[in-house]
Amino acid sequence: MKKYVYFFGAGKAEGKTAMKKLLGGKGANLAEMTNIGIPVPAGFTISTEACIHYYDNDENHPEGLDEQIEINMKKLEEVSGKQFGNSEKPLLVSVRSGAVISMPGMMDTVLNLGLNKETLKGLAKETENERFANDSYRRFIQMFGNVVLGIDSSEFEKLIEQKKEALNIELDTEINADELMKLCDDFKALIKEKTDLDFPEDPKKQLEMSINAVFDSWNNKRAITYRNLNNIPHDLGTGVNVQMMVFGNMGTNSGTGVAFTRNPSTGENKFYGEYLLNAQGEDVVAGIRTPHPITDLEKQMPEMYNQLESVRDKLEKHYKDMQDLEFTIENKELFLLQTRTGKRTSIAAVNIAVDMVSEQLIDKKTAITRVSPEQVDNLLHPMIDPNEDIEIAAKGLPASPGAAVGKVVFNSDEAEKKGKDKEKVVLVRLETSPEDIGGMASAQGILTARGGMTSHAAVVGRGMGKPCIVGCSEISIDEDKEEFSIKGKIVRKGDYITLNGNTGDVILGQTKLVQPKLTGNFEKLIEWADDVRTLGVRANADTPGDSEVALKFGAEGIGLCRTEHMFFAEDRLPVVRQMILADDKESRQKALDKLMPMQESDFRGIFEVMKGLPVTVRLLDPPLHEFLPSTDEGIEKAADSLGIELGKLKNKVESLREFNPMLGHRGCRLGITFPEIYKMQVRAIFEAACELISKNIDVRPEVMIPLVGHVNELRKTKAELIAVAEKIIKKKNVDLDYKVGTMIEIPRACLTADKIAEEADFFSFGTNDLTQMTFGFSRDDIAKFLPFYLEENILDKDPFMAIDQEGVGALMKIAVTAGRKVKPDLKIGICGEHGGEPTSVDFCYKIGLDYVSCSPYRVPVARLSAAQSAINSEKEESFSEKKVNV
Amino acid sequence: MKKYVYFFGAGKAEGKTAMKKLLGGKGANLAEMTNIGIPVPAGFTISTEACIHYYDNDENHPEGLDEQIEINMKKLEEVSGKQFGNSEKPLLVSVRSGAVISMPGMMDTVLNLGLNKETLKGLAKETENERFANDSYRRFIQMFGNVVLGIDSSEFEKLIEQKKEALNIELDTEINADELMKLCDDFKALIKEKTDLDFPEDPKKQLEMSINAVFDSWNNKRAITYRNLNNIPHDLGTGVNVQMMVFGNMGTNSGTGVAFTRNPSTGENKFYGEYLLNAQGEDVVAGIRTPHPITDLEKQMPEMYNQLESVRDKLEKHYKDMQDLEFTIENKELFLLQTRTGKRTSIAAVNIAVDMVSEQLIDKKTAITRVSPEQVDNLLHPMIDPNEDIEIAAKGLPASPGAAVGKVVFNSDEAEKKGKDKEKVVLVRLETSPEDIGGMASAQGILTARGGMTSHAAVVGRGMGKPCIVGCSEISIDEDKEEFSIKGKIVRKGDYITLNGNTGDVILGQTKLVQPKLTGNFEKLIEWADDVRTLGVRANADTPGDSEVALKFGAEGIGLCRTEHMFFAEDRLPVVRQMILADDKESRQKALDKLMPMQESDFRGIFEVMKGLPVTVRLLDPPLHEFLPSTDEGIEKAADSLGIELGKLKNKVESLREFNPMLGHRGCRLGITFPEIYKMQVRAIFEAACELISKNIDVRPEVMIPLVGHVNELRKTKAELIAVAEKIIKKKNVDLDYKVGTMIEIPRACLTADKIAEEADFFSFGTNDLTQMTFGFSRDDIAKFLPFYLEENILDKDPFMAIDQEGVGALMKIAVTAGRKVKPDLKIGICGEHGGEPTSVDFCYKIGLDYVSCSPYRVPVARLSAAQSAINSEKEESFSEKKVNV
Repeated sequence: MKKYVYFFGAGKAEGKTAMKKLLGGKGANLAEMTNIGIPVPAGFTISTEACIHYYDNDENHPEGLDEQIEINMKKLEEVSGKQFGNSEKPLLVSVRSGAVISMPGMMDTVLNLGLNKETLKGLAKETENERFANDSYRRFIQMFGNVVLGIDSSEFEKLIEQKKEALNIELDTEINADELMKLCDDFKALIKEKTDLDFPEDPKKQLEMSINAVFDSWNNKRAITYRNLNNIPHDLGTGVNVQMMVFGNMGTNSGTGVAFTRNPSTGENKFYGEYLLNAQGEDVVAGIRTPHPITDLEKQMPEMYNQLESVRDKLEKHYKDMQDLEFTIENKELFLLQTRTGKRTSIAAVNIAVDMVSEQLIDKKTAITRVSPEQVDNLLHPMIDPNEDIEIAAKGLPASPGAAVGKVVFNSDEAEKKGKDKEKVVLVRLETSPEDIGGMASAQGILTARGGMTSHAAVVGRGMGKPCIVGCSEISIDEDKEEFSIKGKIVRKGDYITLNGNTGDVILGQTKLVQPKLTGNFEKLIEWADDVRTLGVRANADTPGDSEVALKFGAEGIGLCRTEHMFFAEDRLPVVRQMILADDKESRQKALDKLMPMQESDFRGIFEVMKGLPVTVRLLDPPLHEFLPSTDEGIEKAADSLGIELGKLKNKVESLREFNPMLGHRGCRLGITFPEIYKMQVRAIFEAACELISKNIDVRPEVMIPLVGHVNELRKTKAELIAVAEKIIKKKNVDLDYKVGTMIEIPRACLTADKIAEEADFFSFGTNDLTQMTFGFSRDDIAKFLPFYLEENILDKDPFMAIDQEGVGALMKIAVTAGRKVKPDLKIGICGEHGGEPTSVDFCYKIGLDYVSCSPYRVPVARLSAAQSAINSEKEESFSEKKVNV
Repeated sequence: MKKYVYFFGAGKAEGKTAMKKLLGGKGANLAEMTNIGIPVPAGFTISTEACIHYYDNDENHPEGLDEQIEINMKKLEEVSGKQFGNSEKPLLVSVRSGAVISMPGMMDTVLNLGLNKETLKGLAKETENERFANDSYRRFIQMFGNVVLGIDSSEFEKLIEQKKEALNIELDTEINADELMKLCDDFKALIKEKTDLDFPEDPKKQLEMSINAVFDSWNNKRAITYRNLNNIPHDLGTGVNVQMMVFGNMGTNSGTGVAFTRNPSTGENKFYGEYLLNAQGEDVVAGIRTPHPITDLEKQMPEMYNQLESVRDKLEKHYKDMQDLEFTIENKELFLLQTRTGKRTSIAAVNIAVDMVSEQLIDKKTAITRVSPEQVDNLLHPMIDPNEDIEIAAKGLPASPGAAVGKVVFNSDEAEKKGKDKEKVVLVRLETSPEDIGGMASAQGILTARGGMTSHAAVVGRGMGKPCIVGCSEISIDEDKEEFSIKGKIVRKGDYITLNGNTGDVILGQTKLVQPKLTGNFEKLIEWADDVRTLGVRANADTPGDSEVALKFGAEGIGLCRTEHMFFAEDRLPVVRQMILADDKESRQKALDKLMPMQESDFRGIFEVMKGLPVTVRLLDPPLHEFLPSTDEGIEKAADSLGIELGKLKNKVESLREFNPMLGHRGCRLGITFPEIYKMQVRAIFEAACELISKNIDVRPEVMIPLVGHVNELRKTKAELIAVAEKIIKKKNVDLDYKVGTMIEIPRACLTADKIAEEADFFSFGTNDLTQMTFGFSRDDIAKFLPFYLEENILDKDPFMAIDQEGVGALMKIAVTAGRKVKPDLKIGICGEHGGEPTSVDFCYKIGLDYVSCSPYRVPVARLSAAQSAINSEKEESFSEKKVNV
């Protein structure tokens, strides 16, 4: 007969932590604690297999389950010295759910089970407290009625209120024992009325019904929703824990508390928690009485405190991680009701992980897996002080993490001006465009009413490490009046607002921010990660300044240097416009000749900072119209300053207009139709590189051609640029090691990667565009439907945040396989926004990329993620080796 | 020793037609003619292998070639009774190239080879015509100097002019024998001066140099360009034909001509051609003398004519196809110099193919392969009368075939108005939008300055079978003045223009058009095709009228019925706008309820026409903003007529604006966010279908959901619409067989087709969008670079015209394989524009699609293409079977 029930008690348990899948988290840990000699109220766990069987078989118990429950109840009676249903020494039990993956508060619990008119007497006698006993009975009936019989809790509360009114009293605690007993009868009458059932007085019947109710609670609506939201499979089932009741509310020698083995906010290695004497668990949570800090217990009950300290010590040594535990003291006897890995803040996670290595509790690899990439990310941005009392005025998409406080401004010029005056501003725009870059750089944060997670504002915000909320459709901007409204409230220019880029919350007024410190522990941990990871980590950086930040954060090169950002600089834009507006090749060349030395100095600056690390320079990518003004006003201003006829400029703007710029005349398509642009850029790169080489400064340029969809595009462009490069190298008479490769960002490039690989020294996945084209999603327009898609679970993730492994990932795999078939040592990286997102980093590791490249502020995140991927794959390997050995 | 030289002469040849790859087309046919007893001047062919060896080995002859040439020259002397270099009976030869695939005029020819001061005497004596002999010598030196020694022909012409000036005469023919001899000396002096070579008097040397020159001409610049343009491989090499000279200019008993075995314009089974007496081939071509129709020869030289007639008969019986032949009569002796399959007009191709079946020359399958799909297409559109003398004013992209003549109008309202007055107009627009549909339908043709081959104008034009030229950037439109300019010329409203949609030519003024007749032969041929093909052919049709046309052209169902076209109808658009502008669900529903009966009647009409054939209805696809006006003027007008506030409409237009509408909020994304729209459409479909069923009219609706990228989109939409459908079916209490499937038009859909197949009854490839996303090309914006890409051979074809098999095709294959893995009998079709393009139809056949769907006017093209694919694959199969049997 299959074993469905696992006993724990009297220092011995049939289960253990490793049996979590079978027993659920709570049950497995109760068993483990029992085994390592920690006092736990005895009990048993019904396995998840029994639950699954129950569901698969029309809610029938599997064969043998009832018998095993009976046997284990007997054992429990033996161990506890009490008897189930006995009126002298009644055994009371709790029935609790316990899923494999914690689903806090989602499923049901029944306490004080075993009480009836008879056993009640025993409890009253044993505790010498009739009121306590009657109140326990009242609670049990209420809980049973609610959880097992499905009667709304408010129906019972109504009866309590009526009782208090009748007695003319205010507090529940003022109801005396007799009246409580009458209330119990009222409750039973309510149950009869609602369900046509008599309240079961037989404890065995109570137990059976409660176990089934816990099974059933696995599929209640809120549990299903929770699992959907958290991607928990629906077929795991829950364990059921039946455990002897212990009471913390039996008087001043009793009490209850929750504690963490270390400080969950700071990670400090000090016992941390709170407790209440003469109270039950729910009293601590309810917040009616203020609990005491755990250290006070040392004075109030030193013996208990010492026991607790030793439990703390034992648990940490055993679990080798910070624990979150619940305890009850019943008449000076300590019981642990639960232990689990404690949740902690980001900084605490880092400190605990590093401290535990010093304490020789864990090794470095384990430490690396103890901090999540999201926690690392949090550590790199200012945050709203958790002690602040905030009111959320509106919610947008959390496009770039961190918090920002500043005065509202509505245009970039003003943001820049105020920025120069050291005034803190938040730039609020309908949406941003490349012309806003200066303003964005000067602002503390950016808020836009439109756009998705990879809109211009979002991408640039993340790139700058600047808090940013986009697509906040709840705000309605009036740019003329320089104000916006949120739900009727008007916010004017100069009013303070606060943005929480981690959550998308918009808060009116100033809020206190905290600058998380990058402690030595944090640095140490990320350095350990470097020893483990095999995946390279580069940064996307367009300026010497960005490159310095990237280096500081540990980047091993530049994976994407976007040359167009240089074109937007204030001193360049007019020249770029001259180039675009040129009527013939000569005047275009003239403008390009003016731009060349500027670009050259850009590249020289970046190369100098990167000191011989590879720098991947992407040639011009955006369509030319992005460099021209689009509004009537802008066109007039530009015509004036460029000294050209207004009509001519208007015509040019009109003729460059595109229906779908994303799929238009850009990338290498520009380079092919206007080869002189790319030639100028290549000249700038190689003049800069050769000059530095001749000064004995190492340079490793990698020229990257964007938007290749057909090998012929790459072949032609490459041939042209190599001719330019070689001429310069020859002229300067230096040895220069350079590469020419391509972005892989068009589905067709993935599908024909074998052909493209023949012409490419490297591939770099541009997963932003690849995602746009694979899904047919314009990242600038998805705000109209993506939120709905996520809500309705049509997509489980925003594919611009995490690589869509099923679709986009399939194309990436095709490209890697086909490319390496032709060139086995083809270097392949990724430079899309996904390069700093943990699940995407892991995916890149798994499909065999050589490096990821992300914004400088995400480099540490990527370093950690890459290390965790390596560790996980080691584990998987050793696991499958083991399996082979079996 | 390898055989490089193949002799033909005296009724026997070593080669044959089947050796075309080895001997080139000309050589193989000369051999074949010799073998079947047709008089051919004797000679030999040097194989393409010799040419390839020559190129692969630094321009050296392979071992044995020179020896074989010598042996074959000996044979030629024997057969001709003349001797090479002999001053009595000199053997003169021509040296001509002959490639495997005809490259007319691209390579070189040397005539009269073997002449020198000595042999000249023999020729003069033999022909009793010293002037003829000397002129032949002069021509030989000039040709040799040009072809073999690379001296520009004009240099020789200059000397001739000088000579004529000196002699004070006007015509070449006036130069007498002595002066011709002096001219020969001048030519030789020129050669010496330019090349430092003495003109070779040794005929063997002449032959060797000429053979090498022909080898070399394979790689001259114009030959390479020609091969690039026509996708001919560069490694085929050319054969060299050395053949005894025969002279058609030896007097009035000599002559030369070209002829077709049937009329190449009409296909009529009558000998057709022209000739000149006492002339050489070049005289016929040069056009100085007017040649006579071939039938005149019957009177002038009846014996020769009868011989020629019998040759014609023999050739047709042998080659079983219409031949294009060249002949020379030398002193009443007939020689055939060339035969090849004759080019013919579309109607001739059809008539010849069908006639030859009646004549039992070929079988039906062969007839089907004798007409190209392009020829079928030509037969379905009016054409410019080939006899018209036209001047091309500008060139655009040939977006939709056929010719149109009409008065220029610049807006659709006017086109519609004039259309009602039966006035013929051509609509000229910067670009068209859905609001122009009425005007386009009323116009004879459409000309746009912008847009690519699949821009709105192009797609709608092709759909309507309306001649259309797009992306004609040479015209500059001033819509205010209602005029446009072409290269300085102004064309005003009301001026006539002519469009040739087959070529993209814009012609000023009126041009005569011809309406090709759909003869019985044409119908017969396409019906034969139906017996052979296995691939289904459906049509894209949106109205009962379109459906009728489709049926007439043989469509077996509707593969794509676009419901949005119905939304643009004059009476619908205001209601559609009410729906879009609705502030809440109720008012949106109210507008939808108004639309429902209109849609229902649309569907009823189509279902009735299609009489139980499947009708695939695509639910609403375009973004909502396409239904709103975009210009300020349009917005004002619409606000006025809808009776809503201007500001509100402006805001709505603004809020619906998208950066990349192609990748935006459209297709099922709309259906998911506004489910009431799709529900209305489904109600309309099923109310109509059920009503007809209850009247005993068979209906087979197939509901198609557009733009699915993730199975969840399909799952959700399908569940919603099936609920609506089943309710109606139940209410109407009928049996209705319907299907629910999806467009496959997003790369991600192809990559996850196994998942999508689980929810789909059918797939239909939307290759327009699939091509846009796979390439990252916006079809509306490619005019800026695609022409350049095609010119520079970066792409060999416009991927919106023919399926890109390497990229887009790879995705289609992935989708077919994955879809059929899950559902082996999944019905898969294509409804993109490619469905009527022959190479694409062939590709669809090869990857196992069930049907193609194209515009009604291309249905016969698809029917023929599908039959040809089946025939070709049969051939390939029988070929590979043969190979197995060997």
